[in-house]
Amino acid sequence: MRSIKIKDTNIGVVGLGLMGTSFITTLLMTGHKVIAIAPLTEDMEVAPERINNQLLLCEKTGLLKRPVEAYLSQLVISENYELLGSCDLVVECVIEHLEIKKGVYKKVESVVWDHTIIASNTSAIPISELQKDLIHPERFLGIHWAEPSYFTRFMEVTLGENTAPQYAQWVYELAHYWGKEPTLLRKDIRGFITNRLMYAVYREGLNIVQSGQATLEDIDKAFRYDAGSWMTLMGVFRRMDYLGLKDYAETFKAIFPALCNDEHVPALMQRMVDINARGVQNLSGLYQYSAEEAKKWEEAFILFNEEIYRLAAEYPLVKENIPLPGV
Amino acid sequence: MRSIKIKDTNIGVVGLGLMGTSFITTLLMTGHKVIAIAPLTEDMEVAPERINNQLLLCEKTGLLKRPVEAYLSQLVISENYELLGSCDLVVECVIEHLEIKKGVYKKVESVVWDHTIIASNTSAIPISELQKDLIHPERFLGIHWAEPSYFTRFMEVTLGENTAPQYAQWVYELAHYWGKEPTLLRKDIRGFITNRLMYAVYREGLNIVQSGQATLEDIDKAFRYDAGSWMTLMGVFRRMDYLGLKDYAETFKAIFPALCNDEHVPALMQRMVDINARGVQNLSGLYQYSAEEAKKWEEAFILFNEEIYRLAAEYPLVKENIPLPGV
Repeated sequence: MRSIKIKDTNIGVVGLGLMGTSFITTLLMTGHKVIAIAPLTEDMEVAPERINNQLLLCEKTGLLKRPVEAYLSQLVISENYELLGSCDLVVECVIEHLEIKKGVYKKVESVVWDHTIIASNTSAIPISELQKDLIHPERFLGIHWAEPSYFTRFMEVTLGENTAPQYAQWVYELAHYWGKEPTLLRKDIRGFITNRLMYAVYREGLNIVQSGQATLEDIDKAFRYDAGSWMTLMGVFRRMDYLGLKDYAETFKAIFPALCNDEHVPALMQRMVDINARGVQNLSGLYQYSAEEAKKWEEAFILFNEEIYRLAAEYPLVKENIPLPGV
Repeated sequence: MRSIKIKDTNIGVVGLGLMGTSFITTLLMTGHKVIAIAPLTEDMEVAPERINNQLLLCEKTGLLKRPVEAYLSQLVISENYELLGSCDLVVECVIEHLEIKKGVYKKVESVVWDHTIIASNTSAIPISELQKDLIHPERFLGIHWAEPSYFTRFMEVTLGENTAPQYAQWVYELAHYWGKEPTLLRKDIRGFITNRLMYAVYREGLNIVQSGQATLEDIDKAFRYDAGSWMTLMGVFRRMDYLGLKDYAETFKAIFPALCNDEHVPALMQRMVDINARGVQNLSGLYQYSAEEAKKWEEAFILFNEEIYRLAAEYPLVKENIPLPGV
């Protein structure tokens, strides 16, 4: 692999939907030149304004050190894949559809250098599956973040079966430069880490609700005010250490056999599928929403993330002096 | 049940360990008179200073509206159970030992009014079990909070098989007055809600670690920076609504069969038992600690809770104008 100074890395992003633009904002904010490719012509119109607004929001919350224009001047948006020729890393953010993604990789591989790393932000398709038909599967990997990317520290860098570890290591280092607290997944775990652990929660939680032992509201409250009060500070296992580890083994014996082991889609979730519920997007979900409420949740989510992002940085215990990433 | 103005409720607390004193501080802060009973003579010496320090901390963070002395003047600490005679609610916070707890209830029942509610803060013993030998099992229930009580909103009010619902309803309303966001558990679920859902996470997480697919650090990071960024705002199910509900059913089909269903204590946790690991308490746990690090975690936990406590109050979406509870 060519030796590149991290800050001089040119990065390409293919796909300018919500996730693509949010990631582009992060990259610009941390000083990268970005070549953004729009696979859909309509993205050419929507994306610039969205990125501009995101940078303005970052400016408003004090994350930028220069005027918004200075960051925007580092961005090129185009439909022409050939511009990716100068990139050291190309991140694909198109829809979760295997054939469409593979089509993108074919176009990208035909124009980039041999050393260029290609990554997918998929949260649904195994990396090992995506890399199968590439000319250079060893330089392909997963880069998975949480939205909105410019206000979150979460990042999973995932190796497929055929990914060469040095590429993943390089991206892992780069991720720190983006202000992330990345994890490096050496195996291509189905569902990655958080998703997988959260599915264990969904399975148990939906089962408790369906059995009438608690309501959706009860569970949400309990998580918000109990787990929520230590999650960002400690994570799961350090919390156990903090509580002294004493009673877990005994409690496991009592509670593990009572946990739900069902493999089927819970009836409550099947009903959501049947009525085409899309939550805040169509005002119908596990909860019901007015249009105004849905809008408030959207706004609150962005703002809350920014607060947690800062709060996490104030607890250097976990890692000394986490810097805010703006340059 | 006698009609009592919430603010004039006299409350007794039996057991002055960490949890008892933290709860007493909450009660004083919200304007109650508190009769605190020390089952162990040594508590008589330690508890007053601890409560004083907690009130000073609350004052420092702006939660108090009057001088610390004004709150302390509402507190009586004694070894004499007879003082509980004037209480409308008595909360037991002694160690998790069935016979010791039952002994406390016997003493309490012998001195209180017929309308007095007796509660346990147990997180390990079923309420239905605890209420068995009481003269008035119908007025017995669970009140379970998160530490430190004066900086957390979590509270589970749990009915045993023989608890009369009107008593639980009354405590549920009182809990709001304490600045809590309580849940009312109509069935005595083993492990309550958060614990139970977290055990599903522990089972899956320890299994992933043991299989070498990820490290403890990976899982903690992923939870801190992914789940941590929305947990306090949304809880589990509203988060699903927020993300649009679209792919869950399909992903459940793929991931549920891959989740761990083991009923046994994971080897990693058994090892912690075998080496008598107590986490930050004896510097040996899933992680290793220096004495200084352990101390820092203790301090950080208290401060972080206070921040989350305030942050939650700034998002009135979820509930209009959550007041801070100090009076």
